[in-house]
Amino acid sequence: MSIRDLDGGVEVELVTEPPGVVIVGGGFGGLEVARALQDGPARVTLIDRNNYSLFQPLLYQVATAALSPADVAVPIRTLFRGANTEILLDTVCAVDLERARVMTANGRAIPYRMLVLAPGSQYDYFGHEEWRTLALAPKTLEDAVAIRRRLLLAFEDAEGCEDPAERAALMTFVIVGGGPTGVEMAGAVAELARATLARDFRHIDPAAAQVLLIEAGPRILGGFTPALGSYAQEALERLGVRVLLGTPIEHIDERGVLAGGRRIEARTVIWGAGVRAAPVAQWLGVPAAARGAIAVEADFSLPGHPDVFVIGDAAQVRGEDGRPLPGLAAVAKQEGQYLGRLLRLRLEGKSARSPFRYRDYGTMATVGRSAAVASLRGWQLRGHFAWLTWGAVHIYFLIGFRNRLLVLINWLWAWLTYGRGARLITGIETRT
Amino acid sequence: MSIRDLDGGVEVELVTEPPGVVIVGGGFGGLEVARALQDGPARVTLIDRNNYSLFQPLLYQVATAALSPADVAVPIRTLFRGANTEILLDTVCAVDLERARVMTANGRAIPYRMLVLAPGSQYDYFGHEEWRTLALAPKTLEDAVAIRRRLLLAFEDAEGCEDPAERAALMTFVIVGGGPTGVEMAGAVAELARATLARDFRHIDPAAAQVLLIEAGPRILGGFTPALGSYAQEALERLGVRVLLGTPIEHIDERGVLAGGRRIEARTVIWGAGVRAAPVAQWLGVPAAARGAIAVEADFSLPGHPDVFVIGDAAQVRGEDGRPLPGLAAVAKQEGQYLGRLLRLRLEGKSARSPFRYRDYGTMATVGRSAAVASLRGWQLRGHFAWLTWGAVHIYFLIGFRNRLLVLINWLWAWLTYGRGARLITGIETRT
Repeated sequence: MSIRDLDGGVEVELVTEPPGVVIVGGGFGGLEVARALQDGPARVTLIDRNNYSLFQPLLYQVATAALSPADVAVPIRTLFRGANTEILLDTVCAVDLERARVMTANGRAIPYRMLVLAPGSQYDYFGHEEWRTLALAPKTLEDAVAIRRRLLLAFEDAEGCEDPAERAALMTFVIVGGGPTGVEMAGAVAELARATLARDFRHIDPAAAQVLLIEAGPRILGGFTPALGSYAQEALERLGVRVLLGTPIEHIDERGVLAGGRRIEARTVIWGAGVRAAPVAQWLGVPAAARGAIAVEADFSLPGHPDVFVIGDAAQVRGEDGRPLPGLAAVAKQEGQYLGRLLRLRLEGKSARSPFRYRDYGTMATVGRSAAVASLRGWQLRGHFAWLTWGAVHIYFLIGFRNRLLVLINWLWAWLTYGRGARLITGIETRT
Repeated sequence: MSIRDLDGGVEVELVTEPPGVVIVGGGFGGLEVARALQDGPARVTLIDRNNYSLFQPLLYQVATAALSPADVAVPIRTLFRGANTEILLDTVCAVDLERARVMTANGRAIPYRMLVLAPGSQYDYFGHEEWRTLALAPKTLEDAVAIRRRLLLAFEDAEGCEDPAERAALMTFVIVGGGPTGVEMAGAVAELARATLARDFRHIDPAAAQVLLIEAGPRILGGFTPALGSYAQEALERLGVRVLLGTPIEHIDERGVLAGGRRIEARTVIWGAGVRAAPVAQWLGVPAAARGAIAVEADFSLPGHPDVFVIGDAAQVRGEDGRPLPGLAAVAKQEGQYLGRLLRLRLEGKSARSPFRYRDYGTMATVGRSAAVASLRGWQLRGHFAWLTWGAVHIYFLIGFRNRLLVLINWLWAWLTYGRGARLITGIETRT
């Protein structure tokens, strides 16, 4: 390793000799690759910008004060104590394909023999980058805690506000996007207002809060059958959510939105519309397919680069029906498992195995405290049974016994009392 | 209520008619007063700058990644659902004694019939305000999360650092102040390094971290007997903490401290030395006694103002031995209980009761995972039994069944696995 001073900054160059497998991203896909290679013949370096792996499917519950950040995150280092795995807390900014190096924000140049890119996705504001700070999206722990702060502060500010128009705007919550994220967020915000906070204020009635779910398309949960979409919409409406269909968002500012030609005064706007891949195409200097993803070969390798692989949300992989696989945890996980085994075989000098095939166990979304929709291997489920299944599946896929137990206890407590344990307004964002 | 526009800002004037009891601060003392007056004959307004009440005795466990913020905090609104209690999220900046109003940072002027000031204390940097950002103190949830981030990042940065001197400085942790806060923090940092993180890195050995507890006086835990102080010092040294006595801190900068004439290179400095009262004297425009506290009458009233009361860390109250009572949760709680009953009686037109007498049930401090010292009504306890007592007492005084259960589970898990569940580096502080 050499340290050089450049313009006052320090460039640290890490030489791992011989170069091993470098994995970028400790999400569902990256973790599976690292797991398959643990205690194997090659050095493995896992790079993530956080020291934890995040269970994103439950992040909306952090944003709505039901769970604590530590309940949905597990420290990556605790998962890999095998001597051949190294964890680096750093942010990737480029890949030098010619010299086989990953360049990081902390000035490292990390050589690789094989490179796995599993950096996931980020929310897409359809070219309106100025909306990113106005309408937060539940993608990182910091985002989730900031959304929680804005939601809870809106009620606090409304309580102290005498101007009826301002108070109504403070108590109007717009959620953009009728996919699973938007549906789950809208249901949770409605419950927060109608159940958790119901008796806590003197000047406002939190149950009078307006929660609007705004979707540009003709129905919500487009990935599910129309029947399940209607069921979810009815369940949301029973919780008091107003669902606006065929209503594209045209403008967002500090005081509200313009949607479908109509102005809505709302101090809190939450973004759950489209996502796009992390900027892998930019790192690699190659063209991107739809939504910034990289069209990869059958073994997830970058065309023309048999030692560079892309998996998860950042990869465009076609299923058996020829359509790109969706950006789901299960897809990333299965891709990571497949690629991990493939790399392990290759490192051991064995030949590759049968091609990747995504096993679709189904998709689910929850609506409030006892309704959910699930599409599982041809079965269409809804109601209480789907909700219990949703809970069981999410507990099962959480990493770590401690997290499972704590989430279960928090849920039981919330279900029995309608309370939410993590109702804290923290952080330094200044109040407006 | 009237709203006036002043220089672009908005002054909101809240008129509660008739003026009731205003309580400033939702800590141990303020909560007890509010509780005693709940469902009583007077309106009660409880003002706090946070929406939660913090259980400060366990805050060092948030700072050292053992507990989540929500485990040691309870939303104030959930505690007071009686119709006569109003909660205001705001920061007090002055008291107008003549017009009987409390002025807040959000521009409110809140009239009171009786005023209870229970704002607690803050860390005192002995006139070196520039140390406040260099050496964080575990006083607020934000502080605790920032300390956690600095502690965990120090190990991450050391792992990627090749310069031996820089790496040694990253792995040196200075804790200033040998009172209970400093002792508990030093023990927890040593355990974090030696047990929790022991197997998690490849280039550094976290167990080689240096933890220094620096005390200006001749011994640690000056509030306990000398025998318990020595026992605690030995317990800390067994955990690998170096205790430097008679060593005043002379200087702190980004790269270390000067203490007792000796330079110590340390990237992480944690402050646990003296505290002083919140600026109540400044709010009131009256002179302060020692450590910024207000010398009050036997009924906690401000001399010459029989309707204004000060309790907790901000009040100077003398015990039976003539010495000021210490700044403990138990003192604030008992003062709040007494004053709450006194005000309730007065509001009901009854005469006052016997004078306040502090019942000293004792003090405790814990050192690591199975040692503690306790001084309980003349009994001097140490070792395992003191540690179990410490745990039981802290669980008992936590507010809320959910918090008790979650803390208990986190402790059991940590005790069994040596792990710490909340090992998250979050927040926006930039890395150096």
